[in-house]
Parts: sequence; C-alpha cells; structure tokens
Amino acid sequence: MNMAQNCLFCKIAAGQIPVVKIFEDEALLGFLDIGPLSDGHTLVIPKQHFERLHDCPGEVLANICRRIGTIAKAVICAVNCDDYNVLCNNGRAAGQLINHLHFHIIPRKTGDGLFNNWPAYKYKEGRCEAIADEIRKNL
Amino acid sequence: MNMAQNCLFCKIAAGQIPVVKIFEDEALLGFLDIGPLSDGHTLVIPKQHFERLHDCPGEVLANICRRIGTIAKAVICAVNCDDYNVLCNNGRAAGQLINHLHFHIIPRKTGDGLFNNWPAYKYKEGRCEAIADEIRKNL
Repeated sequence: MNMAQNCLFCKIAAGQIPVVKIFEDEALLGFLDIGPLSDGHTLVIPKQHFERLHDCPGEVLANICRRIGTIAKAVICAVNCDDYNVLCNNGRAAGQLINHLHFHIIPRKTGDGLFNNWPAYKYKEGRCEAIADEIRKNL
Repeated sequence: MNMAQNCLFCKIAAGQIPVVKIFEDEALLGFLDIGPLSDGHTLVIPKQHFERLHDCPGEVLANICRRIGTIAKAVICAVNCDDYNVLCNNGRAAGQLINHLHFHIIPRKTGDGLFNNWPAYKYKEGRCEAIADEIRKNL
C-alpha cells in the first residue's frame, strides 16, 4: 500500500486516527467530515495515497466512482435532503487542505448559501476554440 | 440510447446543438462550458440521460471517472495552471441548472475568489455518530 509520511488521511486509512466511518472496503474509506458544511458532509478517499485526481490511476478512480452514487444516496436519505454536491478540490488554490485525494459529498438545502458565487463570463471571439485546441493537444 | 425530451445536454450529445468539443467516445462527451468560471472550464457528461449522480449506474460513473483525471490534466496543461476543482452539482439547491448529470472541471488560480466560502462548523456531541448510523442503515 502506497502511503505518505505525515499524511492525515493515510493515518486515518491505516486506522491510526479514529474517524466516524460510514463505509470501508479494501481500497476505499468513507467517513464523516468533522468540520462539516452541512449535516452528513462525507469524505470518500482511496486508502492508497494519491495527491490529486490526475495522479490517481483510472482504475482507482473508477472504483471510487462506481460506489459514490450509492454512498451519496445513503447520505441524502440519512439527512432527509434531496440535493448535494460532489466536490474534489485539487491543489491549494482550489481549496485542497489535505494533500490526499478526497471527494466531498455535501448535502444541500435551498438557500443555504454554500457555493452560491458563480461568476460565469463569456469568452472573447476565438478564445474558446483556441483553448480547446490546446486541451486536445494535451490529451 | 436513453434520451430525455427537451434536455439541452441530450441534444448536445446527439450533435443537434454545436459545442466546442475536447473529447468524445461512444459513451462520453467533454466540451467547454460557454459560460465559464475560468478559462478552460470543461463539462464532462455521459451521452445517456441520467439526472443525478445516484441515478447513474456504477459502471457508467466508473467509465466517466476512469477518464476524468486524464481530461483534467489536459485542461490544466492547456491553460497553464496547477489547481482545479471537479464538481458535480445534484439538484437545484446544489446549483444544478441542467438536469443531465455533468462534471465540471474548473481550473483555479490563487485568489480567484471562487468557492472561497467554506463555513465549516462542529457537530454537537453524539450528532455525528447518529448521522453515521443512519447513513449505514441506508447503504
């Protein structure tokens, strides 16, 4: 098992730090965030250490996401709400505080005020196509 | 192919409405959001219609997520940034505007001010464990 020294989530995955678990198998762990944004706010992590989504092999991501809908459904049933975000922050500028890949499942209620800043803009002419060309070159 | 009437993303998947594509295979489509939060803001959708994450079969989610790290990496390389969010909004209260499952890949820069509202709180004693019990019952 690939572990990183001094990684909080590696220690949690190894059972060295207690958490309130909701799901566990050989590869994944789901537990409640102790600093939730809403009741039932859940974290799902691979037990192996990967820093970011794009560091993680496709099959490991597939294994997480194969289960994440089922886990999300159980979370929203438990807290009696319909809506939720699944959020994966990658890098400090994106709000990642623990450098071990994790998916937030965040139950939402109308008007709760979370993530309501959505300052969408329009591309200048040609910019969107130029960026898409560059993305395709990198794929 | 499971399609919904009057669904914008079903029409996009069927090629009836043009978008700036960055990736396509028989099951998935990746394209640039025309109302981006940052340059390179990408949407990845299953071509089949599923409203929310938990409506989507595990294998379809696995198929999306198997690719999403590779796509995210290409996006951030293209726009020359390191950090990004992957976000899936489920339900109107969670910010889902198009009722066809989609994953946002949102490149981030330090201090860009997106999603910086993170009002974490603490559970009262016993509440976290009670919610976890309820989630496990629903799994």
